[in-house]
Amino acid sequence: MQRRIQFWFEFASTYSYLTAMRIEQAAAQQDVVVEWHPFLLGPIFAAQGWNNSPFNIYPAKGRYMWRDMERLAAQRGLPFRQPDPFPQNGLKAARLTLAIEDKTNRARFVRAVYTAEFARGQNVSDDAVLVDCLKSTGLPDDLLDRTQDPEIKSDLIEQTKTAQAKGLFGAPSFLVGDELYWGDDRLDDAIRLAANI
Amino acid sequence: MQRRIQFWFEFASTYSYLTAMRIEQAAAQQDVVVEWHPFLLGPIFAAQGWNNSPFNIYPAKGRYMWRDMERLAAQRGLPFRQPDPFPQNGLKAARLTLAIEDKTNRARFVRAVYTAEFARGQNVSDDAVLVDCLKSTGLPDDLLDRTQDPEIKSDLIEQTKTAQAKGLFGAPSFLVGDELYWGDDRLDDAIRLAANI
Repeated sequence: MQRRIQFWFEFASTYSYLTAMRIEQAAAQQDVVVEWHPFLLGPIFAAQGWNNSPFNIYPAKGRYMWRDMERLAAQRGLPFRQPDPFPQNGLKAARLTLAIEDKTNRARFVRAVYTAEFARGQNVSDDAVLVDCLKSTGLPDDLLDRTQDPEIKSDLIEQTKTAQAKGLFGAPSFLVGDELYWGDDRLDDAIRLAANI
Repeated sequence: MQRRIQFWFEFASTYSYLTAMRIEQAAAQQDVVVEWHPFLLGPIFAAQGWNNSPFNIYPAKGRYMWRDMERLAAQRGLPFRQPDPFPQNGLKAARLTLAIEDKTNRARFVRAVYTAEFARGQNVSDDAVLVDCLKSTGLPDDLLDRTQDPEIKSDLIEQTKTAQAKGLFGAPSFLVGDELYWGDDRLDDAIRLAANI
């Protein structure tokens, strides 16, 4: 049986950027396959009474997060910029991710979006930015139309429901079977479990 | 100049247990001295509208935390039990910590309290449990009276105000100069900074 890890990410999530940029390589070293799962944190946060990012609701936590991200990105040699506005609306990017069935292209597109958002500080709810991400992935511009496809819309709603049902409350999260790990800090533990199952 | 790290902990905090049991050894390996700083999260949480542990307020996060603690304690060969009630009231334990001026005894007492709470599941607001912790540290029972000493009470209030002023919003936290790190996951980074200053 193939060893698998599910990577659950939300495009607004800063720490998901860190994971997106390293998970394929880290998993491949352990012969583990990555499944890329976009979902939306908005409905999950709303269900617990938040109408914004916790990093905006709780300013001390927010200030710390930006400093922590800056330090971690520097350690890893990743460019990092605070996007404006924050959080970004990742709805269209998440739908586009689901529209890309080829696994290599899907991962490539996700990294292109995170790079636009957190390395260049671009607004990833902007169609022009998303078209650039499609192009740099080698995909046609008109894939953008799929963001309005009822089937894709419904797929993303299902993804978010599944995330909630599996106990996810933040991003990035990892599922290895039903075992849940939260945060880029747990990626190595999650991969290790996937490798030993 | 001596290389120092400030370890800020709250006795109700599960992840502070993980740090308390390893920080002296980890810091000593880098020739870094640990300063043990008890404080209370209650007033800091209250200021942002929480009247309970976030792990109780947000059940999905709470369920995950218990599982994560169980995994991490197992990885490190530490016994772990969920104390009842959770969170525990660490007020008297925090005051006692401040009453112990000798650094070695202070660290030893803090580990005794965390061990009672999270290895044995005892209630550390209970005087009998605290007396056992004093005894196992080699300290006299009547130190317990200092929990009612106005000067010690005021010291703990000051500690908590300092924590808030330094931007702390959770525990464990580490300060190296004004650089803040949050969470047992950041202990190694914090020690590394302290070692290189």
